[in-house]
Amino acid sequence: MTPDQAVSAAVAAAPGWAASPPAERAARLAAVADALEAAREELVALAGEESRLGPARLNGELTRTTFQLRLFAEQVLEGAFHDARIDRPDPDWPTGPRPDLRRCRTALGPVLVFAASNFPFAFSVAGGDTASAWAAGCPVVVKAHPGHPRLSRRTAEAIAGAGLPDGVFALIEGEEAGVEALRHPGLAAAAFTGSQRGGLALARIAAQRPEPIPFYGEMGSVNPAVVTPLAAEARAEEIAEGYAASLTLGAGQFCTNPGLLFAPAGLPDRVAAHLRGAAAAPMLNERIASGYLAAADALGSRPGVRRLVWPDEEDAPAPRLLTMDLAAFRADIDAAAEECFGPLGLAVTYESLDDVADAVAALPGQLTASLHAEPEEAGGLAPLAAVLAGRSGRVLWNQWPTGVSVTHAMQHGGPYPATTAPAATSVGPAAIERFLRPVAYQGWPQDLLPPPLRDDNPWKVPQAVR
Amino acid sequence: MTPDQAVSAAVAAAPGWAASPPAERAARLAAVADALEAAREELVALAGEESRLGPARLNGELTRTTFQLRLFAEQVLEGAFHDARIDRPDPDWPTGPRPDLRRCRTALGPVLVFAASNFPFAFSVAGGDTASAWAAGCPVVVKAHPGHPRLSRRTAEAIAGAGLPDGVFALIEGEEAGVEALRHPGLAAAAFTGSQRGGLALARIAAQRPEPIPFYGEMGSVNPAVVTPLAAEARAEEIAEGYAASLTLGAGQFCTNPGLLFAPAGLPDRVAAHLRGAAAAPMLNERIASGYLAAADALGSRPGVRRLVWPDEEDAPAPRLLTMDLAAFRADIDAAAEECFGPLGLAVTYESLDDVADAVAALPGQLTASLHAEPEEAGGLAPLAAVLAGRSGRVLWNQWPTGVSVTHAMQHGGPYPATTAPAATSVGPAAIERFLRPVAYQGWPQDLLPPPLRDDNPWKVPQAVR
Repeated sequence: MTPDQAVSAAVAAAPGWAASPPAERAARLAAVADALEAAREELVALAGEESRLGPARLNGELTRTTFQLRLFAEQVLEGAFHDARIDRPDPDWPTGPRPDLRRCRTALGPVLVFAASNFPFAFSVAGGDTASAWAAGCPVVVKAHPGHPRLSRRTAEAIAGAGLPDGVFALIEGEEAGVEALRHPGLAAAAFTGSQRGGLALARIAAQRPEPIPFYGEMGSVNPAVVTPLAAEARAEEIAEGYAASLTLGAGQFCTNPGLLFAPAGLPDRVAAHLRGAAAAPMLNERIASGYLAAADALGSRPGVRRLVWPDEEDAPAPRLLTMDLAAFRADIDAAAEECFGPLGLAVTYESLDDVADAVAALPGQLTASLHAEPEEAGGLAPLAAVLAGRSGRVLWNQWPTGVSVTHAMQHGGPYPATTAPAATSVGPAAIERFLRPVAYQGWPQDLLPPPLRDDNPWKVPQAVR
Repeated sequence: MTPDQAVSAAVAAAPGWAASPPAERAARLAAVADALEAAREELVALAGEESRLGPARLNGELTRTTFQLRLFAEQVLEGAFHDARIDRPDPDWPTGPRPDLRRCRTALGPVLVFAASNFPFAFSVAGGDTASAWAAGCPVVVKAHPGHPRLSRRTAEAIAGAGLPDGVFALIEGEEAGVEALRHPGLAAAAFTGSQRGGLALARIAAQRPEPIPFYGEMGSVNPAVVTPLAAEARAEEIAEGYAASLTLGAGQFCTNPGLLFAPAGLPDRVAAHLRGAAAAPMLNERIASGYLAAADALGSRPGVRRLVWPDEEDAPAPRLLTMDLAAFRADIDAAAEECFGPLGLAVTYESLDDVADAVAALPGQLTASLHAEPEEAGGLAPLAAVLAGRSGRVLWNQWPTGVSVTHAMQHGGPYPATTAPAATSVGPAAIERFLRPVAYQGWPQDLLPPPLRDDNPWKVPQAVR
């Protein structure tokens, strides 16, 4: 299918899908989940071959993916995302007689999803972007990630068996095809998970269309973690072990990987002890592995950086740890705070916690920021906590950022350049909001109102009536 | 005050204002409303001198402005916009043990507001953008519109007496100062109401910053109104009169002005009869009046356009009416659908209503779209109604789009190029959402949580606990 065919079919399908009753739409999302479950063995095997991620991780990720589809199906049935508001006429309204005015969020139209490489299920063909766009009532065209082409096609086949209406889903392949789809006049929005370079290039294309469209790019970050002196004194071993585990999870191939650690002197050596023996896990592919090694080498050669853990065989993607002091970090912050995709940690040693707050404030926008501290010092950490929350989408207390829970209160996003849209999340029910826009209906007849705004409320959605 | 001083002061004030308790923040918004009321006579007189709008309109607009401030103050007290979500830990969560996760929307930071010329109160210094940003917890720097400099300064003086903390409000003047503020690294978002040319230029600057920021531009449109043959037959005179009244209200200087009318042949002559005798109301200033005349003349010279109402004295900004048939309109849609700021109507005559739906679908994004029809034909109008809603932010049934009610269900926005952000509204309580972004707190101690997420809920905001 050409990009033009895919988007044109989505355009044709959009009104019908947006108007599909919740029970029908939710059933189709659940049917996709069922189809993926039914093909689990084959899908996980294919994903293993193409991503080198192990079966435990891949089975867990597929479970997350089907759970996600069902969670979005629940949101469709609940209908809160319509944000239905009904203002009854009010002749005495202070600014003049108020008409009958009703407002709800409506589906934007065809959405293009750029799949990620590092989550071949959860952020790929039938992942969170696709599921949330479907839930919003938008047809989806997925641009497959070249890292797992066979899995992408097989996933698309499974989706094809789930009874979605024609045009509500299509898979396209190739960089040029993706750009062509992004420029298609019928497209209404796009979502992307991947590198900053790729995301920003696509965001520019979306912005330079004759009719620019919303572009939701989620691009990763270094996810700073700060360890207070008190915590380092009380729990050095636990923290070092936890950091090493989070840094090396999935070969460090997570956008929430804690690549940057602010710690008192001494702690980096404890972390190094844990990383030194760590086995080299295979990375997604050779290009990513060599990219990791090149980025680690470049950062390892910056002024003031020491190589604490640096395996001899530099062609194997084993974990690496660098260290520098805070003054050197601040002097070279643009290079030192750049994301390296893989198990590379940079431990920045500090003397005063106040200086750390200043350094965090100077960081680019982050997906997450973690604080490791003792309970009794919480009161005094308010300024640092405010800076961490001010630069990121999610803050954690004595926890590590990898492992993103799919739940109502999750926020997976953050200030630029962690994402291109700081008010959006790509994980959790609020992800649906990205693909909606409000429309108000003034004096509009009941017959022509969208179901969420009708007096008889046929979809039984929450209505705020005033 | 220089732009740098203004934004720097806003940066310094931002954490305190965002943390200010609802009662305090609401009281300050109400105090601004009180201060404007206290200065009403003087403000209206100044506005009259600088805008040439009459005292009735200006008094009404000031009432709307103070009402708006108080409505946003109510939202601050109610606290729903925080969208507070609390997920309790759940060891049995299907994707793995769920941590204690809490999410709310937090203030973005300093906001720059570009004031409009045509609403010297409601979309100017203390207008809806300013009030909604304050309500969100963001300090505001207003770039005054050069059309009413004395009124802007006097309004700023009134605000200064309302007890806002230092840095929460500043007024700057001049195009260069506005651009400098927009490029300031401390700025977090900007809002604009005005022309498409100005809005798009500023949107580009916002997007090209080293750290791009959200830019909410509301730029107006031609606001198509469609009259069905049945309605034209049943109520020609009423519709013609209503259209003429809406078109000439405020000398046509509204972004919701219905500049484009689709009607069966015959109706334009009825409209013409109402416009022919209409008095020329003064426009905001000479530049706007000459711009109106030049745009009307250009459109009046396009192929297939006839001048139905065209006063002899072409230097007076009296209402004008053009007409063309649907085929000619479609052939020249880019020029014919361009907004003309002022009382210029273009009546497009059609033979088949189906062709009108196609023409509307080809229009650029609109703030509003109106449908005039008979109740008994509503059922058959679903396709046309869907197209109207698909191209606009607000649809109206047998009503005219001028006169935007300030209420919960209002949507004042629309697809590009009516605005630069189709999911946003610049009127009504939902306008606050533009200046917030969500942050999730994982395992975060009670002491350090923002008040909306604490178990003791000190601000008494709605919390969704799961």
